[in-house]
Amino acid sequence: NSSFNQKNHPHRRYNPLLNEWILVSPQRAKRPWQGQTEKTSEEQLPAHDPNCYLCSGNVRVNGEKNLDYKGVYVFDNDFGSLMKDEVEFSEDSSDFFSLKPERGINRVICFSENHSLTLPEMEIDDIKNVVDVWQKQYEELGNLDYINHVQIFENKGQVMGCSNPHPHGQIWAQSSVPSIVAKTQENLKKYFDKNGTSLLEDYVKKELEINERIILENEDFVALVPFWAVWPYETIIVSKRKIENLLDFSKNEKISLASIIKDLTTKYDNLFEISFPYSAGIHQSPTDGKLHPEWHFHMHFYPPLLRSAEVKKFMVGYEMLAEAQRDITPEQSAEILKNISTIHYKSK
Amino acid sequence: NSSFNQKNHPHRRYNPLLNEWILVSPQRAKRPWQGQTEKTSEEQLPAHDPNCYLCSGNVRVNGEKNLDYKGVYVFDNDFGSLMKDEVEFSEDSSDFFSLKPERGINRVICFSENHSLTLPEMEIDDIKNVVDVWQKQYEELGNLDYINHVQIFENKGQVMGCSNPHPHGQIWAQSSVPSIVAKTQENLKKYFDKNGTSLLEDYVKKELEINERIILENEDFVALVPFWAVWPYETIIVSKRKIENLLDFSKNEKISLASIIKDLTTKYDNLFEISFPYSAGIHQSPTDGKLHPEWHFHMHFYPPLLRSAEVKKFMVGYEMLAEAQRDITPEQSAEILKNISTIHYKSK
Ligand SMILES: O=P(O)(O)O[C@H]1O[C@H](CO)[C@@H](O)[C@H](O)[C@H]1O
Ligand SMILES: O=P(O)(O)O[C@H]1O[C@H](CO)[C@@H](O)[C@H](O)[C@H]1O
Repeated sequence: NSSFNQKNHPHRRYNPLLNEWILVSPQRAKRPWQGQTEKTSEEQLPAHDPNCYLCSGNVRVNGEKNLDYKGVYVFDNDFGSLMKDEVEFSEDSSDFFSLKPERGINRVICFSENHSLTLPEMEIDDIKNVVDVWQKQYEELGNLDYINHVQIFENKGQVMGCSNPHPHGQIWAQSSVPSIVAKTQENLKKYFDKNGTSLLEDYVKKELEINERIILENEDFVALVPFWAVWPYETIIVSKRKIENLLDFSKNEKISLASIIKDLTTKYDNLFEISFPYSAGIHQSPTDGKLHPEWHFHMHFYPPLLRSAEVKKFMVGYEMLAEAQRDITPEQSAEILKNISTIHYKSK
Repeated sequence: NSSFNQKNHPHRRYNPLLNEWILVSPQRAKRPWQGQTEKTSEEQLPAHDPNCYLCSGNVRVNGEKNLDYKGVYVFDNDFGSLMKDEVEFSEDSSDFFSLKPERGINRVICFSENHSLTLPEMEIDDIKNVVDVWQKQYEELGNLDYINHVQIFENKGQVMGCSNPHPHGQIWAQSSVPSIVAKTQENLKKYFDKNGTSLLEDYVKKELEINERIILENEDFVALVPFWAVWPYETIIVSKRKIENLLDFSKNEKISLASIIKDLTTKYDNLFEISFPYSAGIHQSPTDGKLHPEWHFHMHFYPPLLRSAEVKKFMVGYEMLAEAQRDITPEQSAEILKNISTIHYKSK
């Protein structure tokens, strides 16, 4: 018997945020690929596109007109997944047919009036304006009595279901704490109740000591490939301080967050020299009016690409039925991301 | 306030198999789509393709040669995610860096020597041969002392990461019970311990009474859209009898399973008149040598398409960070699938 080596042998790793195992298959990275390839479009976009329903002053599908905005611009999603209205409902308890109405608000946040930009290509100050708006939105929506959770996220790139290249993100604010956030909260709380400290604070300290999966670090934040990452180039941005949510951010921390987002997404773009697709989003304390000393602000980046701009990782079959699986190890991905420049390839 | 109507109002539904909620947004189905569209290739394939590494007698990437097989053919995956070898390992307990080696076997099952077929286009007898091989493989692999779970599945279509149109499925057999199966088992067990009956048996009985989400029924099996389905046309095939796993199948039940698989996948193909992509797979009792009276054989179908052959549902952003979400309701999908013919459009 040979002795175990995590660079060569299949193994499972434990994700303490979700209390779940994942499968890692380092030996499989060399598998040839004859399957679907993704389109990559690298045409230069105009700064204003008359057909874009997110550009300044344009008319949207439902007939409303965008303001002649500059900078960040927020409006209610015309085709939201949630509705504000209160509805009358009498609960019917049932083992198999449990259902409850869900109220909420969906918003779109344009990051810039410039149709051709993306986060990595924006100035730190302008990304900081986005962070300011995230903070204000979290506050405003969270203060509504029927909103108990505010999910801030961005889908970037066609392969991530994004239907418009105009730089924008979304907010889905709702009455319930959604499943994955509830699970994360449960595990953060278990750890906090046991140790009196934040799971993510303790984890990041250890990662900084080991220094094998750290991609970027500044005064207030660390970006790393989590030990239990499932997507090939998945990363997480964690605040060094236990910050429960955006409201606790200082001005400096907002600049630090903007700066680490810029550097991380620039590294992503430089990896295959394309605008790198991902879904990213913030996990922070719910706005349910309860105390949440267990919460620790973090931002997940889930990018689908595997070995090139054209070949993505498919989370299908085994992954849908059994367990998340990855080929390249988190350490290999971290090594690659760490060594990539933070100067955007387009600006060279 | 209007009163709640599940056809018009956003709501959450509970999935008792996974103990999780999902978000349903019926009002959102009319959202326009300007995003990525899928390629649809409907060229007629040859019965034998000299470049296909799954066809009879062809040489595979690693130099091995397929037998001149007819019917079902099984071989070890050349680029498996698991390895058979035992490795020496000393566990290190850790809050954040838990890891353990995983042993296992990956196999490929060609459903037919005919490169141009798919399950819906095969004869029931030939699909029954596939079920026979699933049964044998489950037995053979499950009997190995280090194999405690056998995951049988199929990825169909390029959009599901399938890199070869030759009709085939896969088996991943491994030492651990994978995360999603373990969660399902936990919930089946909780119900069984409480009620002394099978969760899925009781559920299917209720569904047959209500008859709103049933797609197909024969002597031994029911195919339906679960109340908590997340994919637009997700379905589940459940045995009427509480069968724990494939070993308990009678010959008749194997024919019934083959027949309902043929009819369901034919309906799928007829929906948009294309070869309908999906990931499908069997959930059944683990081969860990323990008693599993809680288990009830079922087969999940997770198809990604939403409103046409070109537009799929993207599980991204909110879904990756917060909670699974669907637009069209399970009842609407069931209605559509129920009314579709079981005669394949190609044979008309
Ligand atoms: O082994 P295949 O078919 O090439 O690979 C496909 O199925 C596997 C199991 O669902 C996934 O891990 C891969 O991401 C997918 O591309
Ligand atoms: O609202 P969008 O950007 O059109 O839609 C996209 O993001 C949503 C939230 O992640 C998903 O539910 C959709 O499937 C996806 O296409």
